[in-house]
This record gives sequence, structure tokens and C-alpha cells, in this order.
Amino acid sequence: MLKNIAAVAVLATAFGTHAFAQEAKTIGVSIPAADHGWTAGVVYHAERVAEMIRAEHPGSTVIVKTSPDAASQANALQDLAVQGLDALVILPTDPDPLVNAIREIKDAGTFVTIVDRAPSQNDSSVRDLYVAGNNFALGQVAGDYIKATTPDAQVVVIRGMPIPIDEERQAGFDKAIEGSGVTVLDRQFGNWNRDDAFKVTQDFLTKFDKIDVIWCQDDDMAVGVLQAIEQAGRTDIQYVVAGAGSKDMIKKVMDGDKMIPVDVLYPPAMVGTAMELTAAAVFNNVPVHGTYVLDATLITKDNAANYYFPDSPF
Amino acid sequence: MLKNIAAVAVLATAFGTHAFAQEAKTIGVSIPAADHGWTAGVVYHAERVAEMIRAEHPGSTVIVKTSPDAASQANALQDLAVQGLDALVILPTDPDPLVNAIREIKDAGTFVTIVDRAPSQNDSSVRDLYVAGNNFALGQVAGDYIKATTPDAQVVVIRGMPIPIDEERQAGFDKAIEGSGVTVLDRQFGNWNRDDAFKVTQDFLTKFDKIDVIWCQDDDMAVGVLQAIEQAGRTDIQYVVAGAGSKDMIKKVMDGDKMIPVDVLYPPAMVGTAMELTAAAVFNNVPVHGTYVLDATLITKDNAANYYFPDSPF
Repeated sequence: MLKNIAAVAVLATAFGTHAFAQEAKTIGVSIPAADHGWTAGVVYHAERVAEMIRAEHPGSTVIVKTSPDAASQANALQDLAVQGLDALVILPTDPDPLVNAIREIKDAGTFVTIVDRAPSQNDSSVRDLYVAGNNFALGQVAGDYIKATTPDAQVVVIRGMPIPIDEERQAGFDKAIEGSGVTVLDRQFGNWNRDDAFKVTQDFLTKFDKIDVIWCQDDDMAVGVLQAIEQAGRTDIQYVVAGAGSKDMIKKVMDGDKMIPVDVLYPPAMVGTAMELTAAAVFNNVPVHGTYVLDATLITKDNAANYYFPDSPF
Repeated sequence: MLKNIAAVAVLATAFGTHAFAQEAKTIGVSIPAADHGWTAGVVYHAERVAEMIRAEHPGSTVIVKTSPDAASQANALQDLAVQGLDALVILPTDPDPLVNAIREIKDAGTFVTIVDRAPSQNDSSVRDLYVAGNNFALGQVAGDYIKATTPDAQVVVIRGMPIPIDEERQAGFDKAIEGSGVTVLDRQFGNWNRDDAFKVTQDFLTKFDKIDVIWCQDDDMAVGVLQAIEQAGRTDIQYVVAGAGSKDMIKKVMDGDKMIPVDVLYPPAMVGTAMELTAAAVFNNVPVHGTYVLDATLITKDNAANYYFPDSPF
């Protein structure tokens, strides 16, 4: 430890003491509780990056609060506001019921970053920065991969829920396979839920004698899909394309699992990106007001290691 | 100094030594030479943020290189590549002639961030992250302000150069004033150049007896515009709307100068945002692949201080 301290002292003299002279600032981070895989990843990455920001910006206080629903998240926002926030990073459980609480914090002069789930009115009156994944591209990247890999595939699709995120994903997928030999046999909702996806897959397997590919757009649902395929003993399904970037699916990609040859990134770690940018706005005075859309990167065996967090719950 | 070192040591123990255990990484930053106001700002902010990254990420090497033209920037890229880059942040002097040199660096496994000026092919085969201002919004925000402030204004417009950036700005402006009482008397190119804008304004002042507002979309050009108005002794022009966020124009906004009541942000500091994000990708493993469009924020007397860098050359 003494060695480390000495090293820090040397670095401080070598690089100047700029970073160490930073003002004290408080960043509040309000996120959903870990109620399923993706949000568990959000909690993990928020805590991981909070620690990094504390180390990178001595004097900073980063408070991470999780809330199971919109009502308790509204309370959490009030609790955070009382502590005198310089910035708020929020991934809303449900954005519209929270929009007034968010606007109140912004109106008090706090820098506000919204992550992933945007309220219907998502403009600069509500937030300074918006960070999100690209749902259209998530569908498109999956469709492009299927078209290129199995040009005449007969595909069944498991949707999420009938909300805009899902509709954008479907539109991206449809655009990608338009005019190709890829056929969609059926689409059913699986509610981004493992058990529901299991049941929907069972129905598909009963209904269709031959399925080449299942596109289920979500790693949690993929777990249910793979289970149903295995239980049915079906060997016609060549592979499944999911999405998110969970450690289990990324591990399968890394290991060359034939059923999960790729994954499409929609990372819970985006909360960390949002936190880093917010810290840059608060401490380093760089302009960050705007909209940041993360690519839906295709994860293959070649790049999977970059997206693998073995310590994450997701 | 001893006091500072002690403080650092205390912080290192308080916050853990996480940040100090970071691997050594090299980030190259290739930008245009300071050939006019905006690029002078780019150089200033690149150097400012390079120092911050060095302090925040001990072990990091950040090399900032300026180049006057595309040919010398291609050489600068080769020089940087030889030093073994983990990441490259580039604001190209001229993007298309540099696209092959950039792709070569990316193909070698380097994380590539392009700032502001995108090559014709601006996708994930060329770069990992793209950070830019919003040109359409820059025009739209100016148009909205003029429409709201002087609903029947007769406006003359000074354009930049006939390239996409300028066309997007014009389209945003036209959309904003569509169906309003704001009339455009004339549009001429001023080449984002102070002297050219001076001459164009002289022509406008000769041609039109009464002008209410001049929209010149650029702070450098605004200097020429204001000079021409003053020399002509014209008192009919109520105000000028420029854009960028230069310290001179922001100072005028802060001081309540009636001729420059607002400015529209298109900040050279965006290079710093890009550098911070690139550092977050390299050191903190947060996902940053994507497209980041900065808002064209309306700078008013109320928020101007946030955008004022008195030490910047621009």
C-alpha cells in the first residue's frame, strides 16, 4: 500500500495537481432495482463506474439508489435532491410518471441525464443529455446477420411487449430482410420474460415442423428459447439470435456455441457511459448536452471478450 | 506541494487505488492547426482535456498533434500509429482524403473516434465513435429565436460555403421560420470568413434600406458583420444571430450587448467531449461505440457563463 501511495505522489507531481484540485460535486444515480437480468446489469455497472468516478475525481460524491417502481423512484429522487445534487443520472423504471419529478430537479439547476427509457416528451426542457441504445439497429443487425448467414432461412420471431422499443426493433429487422429469401413464419410476444419465451417457443415448435432460425432479440428470452428447443429434442433449428450482451450469451459466443453464434449489443453498461459523460460535464466542463445513440454492435467470436464481464450478475 | 501530495495519499486510501492501478494506454489526438478561430478553440480544448485525462488516468499518455492540411495530417497519423496507439481521436482537416489512413489505424485494432467532419462513408467500418454538432438544429434554433423575438423580421442570411454542413443549417432555419412572418431578403456566401462576411454585409446594406436581423450562423463571420454595420452607421438592424460559442460573442451575450443577444452553440470543445468518451472506452470499459450529436444550445444571458472560456483563443 505504501508503495501505491508513493506512486500516486510521484504521478501527482509528474502530471500536475489539476485533477486533485477539483471542486466537491455530488452526482445522484437513480436506477431500477435488479428485477431481471438487464436491470441487474444496470445496477452492477452503475456501482462499478461510480467507484471509478470517485477515484478519477477526488472530491466527488456519487450516490447510487435503486427503486423497484416509479412511485418509489419518485421518492428516491426527492431524497437525492435534498442532498444537493450537481447532476442526476436517471434510468427511469417508467419514464412518463416520473417526468414531473425529473423536470423539478432540472429546474432547480441540476444537470440531468436520462438513460434508455425516454419520456414521451424527451427534449431539453426535461433533460440535458439522453443516452440510449439503438432499437431499430438492434433489429436490423440481427436481420442482416440472418440474411447473410442463412439466406433462405425460415424464421420465427419472439417479440417483447407491444411498446415502441419493440416496434422499432421489428421495423429494423423487417427492413434488413426485405426482398431477401428470409421468411418470417410467425411472431408472438414473449414479454422479455424467460418463462413466456419458453412457452412461446414450445408453441412454435408444435406449430412448425421445420424452423431454421429463432430471433428473440433478448438474452433473457434466449434462455427460455434454448430450454424449449432442448426439451423438444429438435435439431432443425440452426441457431438463435438474441440481444443485450449478457455474460452467459457472450460466453457462448466466445466458446463458439453453435446455437448462439452472435449476440447484438444493447448493454446495461450504457448507464456507465452516461455517468462518465455526466462527470465530464460536471468536472471537466466539456459540452455534453445532446443525444447519444449507442451502436447495436454485432458481437462475434472475434470481439466478444471486449464485452464480457464475468463479475456482472448479467 | 507537500500538502497536496499528502491529500492525494489520503484520497488514494479513502477511495481505493482503483484508478491508480490502470494499465498504461496511449491516446493519439489528431486535429487541424489553429488556422482560424474555431480550430484555435479546438487546439485549446484538446490540450486542456489532454491534461485532465493524464491526471484522471495515471499511466495514460495523450499525444496531441496539429496539422495544417490533409496531407500533413496523413503523415501525423502515421507518426502516431508508430507509437502504438490504443485509441485515436481525429478531427479531420478534410475527411475524405484521410479516410483510408483512418481505416488503416482502425483495422490495426485501434479504437477510432471521429469528431465533427465525417467522411462520406461514416460507419463502423471507419470509426467506433462519431461525435458532432447538430447543424440542422443550429439553423433551427436561430430561426426559432428570430421568429419568437421579431415575428415580422426582414432578415438577410450569410451562408458558409456550399457544402452539406451549410445546407443542413439553412434547412433547419427555413423549417423554423416556415409559415411565420419572418422574411428572408437575400442569402449570400461568406465562406465562414470574417473579411468575406464584412464584404457581403456591405453589399446587403447598400442593397436594402431596412434590415431587421442578420443571421450569419458563425461567430467569426459575426465580427465582420458587426464591423460593416458600425462603419455604415446603420441603426435599423436590431440584432445579429451568429453561432459557435466563441469567447467574444459569449462575452457580449453575458454583458447584455443588444446587437448579440444570443449565440447558438457549436463548440470547438466537442473535441474534449470526444476525448473524454474515448478515455472512458479505453480505461473504464463502458460502451461508447455509437453516434453522439451535441445539441445546438441557445446561449442566453442566463446560461452564458457556463460556456465562457476566457483563457481560450476563441
